[in-house]
Amino acid sequence: MSSGRRQFLRRAALLGGGVAATTATARALAQDDSAAAPPAVPPWSKSLGAPILASPYGVPSRFEANVRRRESPGLTRTAHSSVAFTPLQSLFGIITPSGVHFERHHAGVPEIDPHQHRLMIHGLCRSPRIFTMDDVMRFPSASRIHFIECGANTGMEWANVAVPTVQYTHGMLGCSEWTGVALSTLLDEVGFDRNAKFLLAEGADGAGLTRTIPMAMALDDVMVVYGQNGEMLRPEQGYPLRLLVPGVQGVSSVKWLRRLEIGDKPWNTREESLHYVDMMPGGRHRQYTWIQEAKSVITSPSGGQVLRDRGFHEITGLAWSGRGKVRRVDVSTDGGRNWRTARLQAPIHTKALARFRIDWQWDGAPALLQSRVIDETGYVQPTYRQLREVRGTRSIYHNNAIHTWRVDASGEVGNVHVA
Amino acid sequence: MSSGRRQFLRRAALLGGGVAATTATARALAQDDSAAAPPAVPPWSKSLGAPILASPYGVPSRFEANVRRRESPGLTRTAHSSVAFTPLQSLFGIITPSGVHFERHHAGVPEIDPHQHRLMIHGLCRSPRIFTMDDVMRFPSASRIHFIECGANTGMEWANVAVPTVQYTHGMLGCSEWTGVALSTLLDEVGFDRNAKFLLAEGADGAGLTRTIPMAMALDDVMVVYGQNGEMLRPEQGYPLRLLVPGVQGVSSVKWLRRLEIGDKPWNTREESLHYVDMMPGGRHRQYTWIQEAKSVITSPSGGQVLRDRGFHEITGLAWSGRGKVRRVDVSTDGGRNWRTARLQAPIHTKALARFRIDWQWDGAPALLQSRVIDETGYVQPTYRQLREVRGTRSIYHNNAIHTWRVDASGEVGNVHVA
Repeated sequence: MSSGRRQFLRRAALLGGGVAATTATARALAQDDSAAAPPAVPPWSKSLGAPILASPYGVPSRFEANVRRRESPGLTRTAHSSVAFTPLQSLFGIITPSGVHFERHHAGVPEIDPHQHRLMIHGLCRSPRIFTMDDVMRFPSASRIHFIECGANTGMEWANVAVPTVQYTHGMLGCSEWTGVALSTLLDEVGFDRNAKFLLAEGADGAGLTRTIPMAMALDDVMVVYGQNGEMLRPEQGYPLRLLVPGVQGVSSVKWLRRLEIGDKPWNTREESLHYVDMMPGGRHRQYTWIQEAKSVITSPSGGQVLRDRGFHEITGLAWSGRGKVRRVDVSTDGGRNWRTARLQAPIHTKALARFRIDWQWDGAPALLQSRVIDETGYVQPTYRQLREVRGTRSIYHNNAIHTWRVDASGEVGNVHVA
Repeated sequence: MSSGRRQFLRRAALLGGGVAATTATARALAQDDSAAAPPAVPPWSKSLGAPILASPYGVPSRFEANVRRRESPGLTRTAHSSVAFTPLQSLFGIITPSGVHFERHHAGVPEIDPHQHRLMIHGLCRSPRIFTMDDVMRFPSASRIHFIECGANTGMEWANVAVPTVQYTHGMLGCSEWTGVALSTLLDEVGFDRNAKFLLAEGADGAGLTRTIPMAMALDDVMVVYGQNGEMLRPEQGYPLRLLVPGVQGVSSVKWLRRLEIGDKPWNTREESLHYVDMMPGGRHRQYTWIQEAKSVITSPSGGQVLRDRGFHEITGLAWSGRGKVRRVDVSTDGGRNWRTARLQAPIHTKALARFRIDWQWDGAPALLQSRVIDETGYVQPTYRQLREVRGTRSIYHNNAIHTWRVDASGEVGNVHVA
């Protein structure tokens, strides 16, 4: 019977165990090994746990310490103008926990006293105003779920630099339930000039980050937000106030928002002329490319993970489009020759992450995993070949090509940068 | 002009300020006071902020330290069998941040090593099994947004004990995006007996909390969950594994789930015979009252808050039903004589919190604020009078009556327990 195996495991545990506690728990594990035996009673079933309010503000278990934001080694030169990536490989559903939401800033994270924070709206308007946080929070509010993706997400892949994990390939990405005021409400409040064509948004950080926003966009679905996932914004997400420009590259959703100027032409600021332009073939470049086109990626299995054995595995990942809703996601396990349609988590939100899932029986042979999204406009996520035909290979921004993970016969998963 | 007032404020700041930094920021504030003046440049616009990954796992701003779980003084006798309430008055949207989600436990919060955690399923089935966490997480997954409400939420109000804030009146309530496996999948895996009528769920905490679940419910929408709001469950929410019984009183969603026994009758355990029964008029009691009927509450303005002045205020709150979707929420500002229909945040999820909002012009007179939900079954949230006609006044559990906040002429908001 299985008691022989149980005895072996128990002996192994007793011999190999380091400290007493480890041995005891390893023994409990060994007893559990047979389904016929009653389950061992673990130590936490025989003792009191932590008292209430051990954490008035709760944090994850210490066993989850590896689920955290990370910097890509060597990517930036200073810790005050850098990026930390979301651990997409460890996340579920569509909400990104605020504690691991990617961060990107140009002069560090300011510590702003909300009682002293102000938002000025001026320029082409009848009644320029300076709002306190109390003023902003008194307007009618709305909550919506939207993604934010940095325009440079997956930028390292353009030149065949294969980074190892989905945290680094696609981790400048998050999705939250945002709460705030429609920007159009605040623009109405100052009596904006109906001939105005553009807005300038400015942050209160040391970099004074500035971005031009087209007025048509501003009057559509742009929000001035103070809430993220039910509570006030985190400092690294713009506390106490930020812009949210749904579907548009993250840099436009100016954090620590202090000023909106209404004008009649684009400002051509540093962050929209020196940076955040797309290098095109033939030495040309594209400027003011706002929209994040439809894109998807498999988050599990993904680079750095290992399939334990053959048989059933769920393939899951994320899809999104800056143009609206995800309509369909297809998945291939043979590098794009055959495709099957994945299940989508309901409901689908516009300009938000959509979670897809599909069953897979792994036969133990090498495999190439890909996902391909189609959005509600009919746009199909391109292959690298298709993208490069138009955009060349010198760009950094707006890489939305189909991504490929390689599964080896050993079960190890890695990044194949398919040219 | 306004420079006189600015001078005054500046002088006041210089005289009244404690330390230099306070004075400097108070002066900035004073300069902002006129809309005609350019906005003062605050210190955080002139310096570097914190470097990246100052918090690899992010936390709220220190200015939000008051948004936290709290115990209701004197409610329980030990810190290991207690309740901490969600700060509903400070939250937005429908997602409850995991860090402030209410906690309730009977023997403290166990610290469970997920590598050693096991789930046993046995009883009336063909193939009893003991699952590791890897086993559980390998099954097809699903994510859904659902509320959890303790059956005792608002229990103190039955006997006209008015607690001061919505954190204490309704704060045993949260709503999360949960990820896990359909319980029906696991029951299929063990080949459950089709004649089985009930399940027993047991926790791995020191209290070994046990609850009976009807099989019909188990095969419907019950999940075995490991994910909450995108990441692994927090320890106080059942890490690494819990049951989720949507729409049912929280105690049934057994945390730290270690055992499911399939049987043919209810178990009548301690937590379903000595506790969690409804005292009725005439000395009778109701047992196994699972469903949380439709309920709503205004979270702002709510007890302890103060309206700064007359004019526009948004009234907002939460509504939910254990029977399905919220259909409509009405709001009264005159104690239930007149009602207006509130806006509902889209989309509405089944057995989840729904956020409602409605505009209000406060004329400065005393007011009585109420909300009333109607769910998709047509059920209307009862008044206290209606509830007590059926249930008497000796109960603790399942109080879903319409709640009233009193607004005084001073703008102060308090709890009127309307009999």
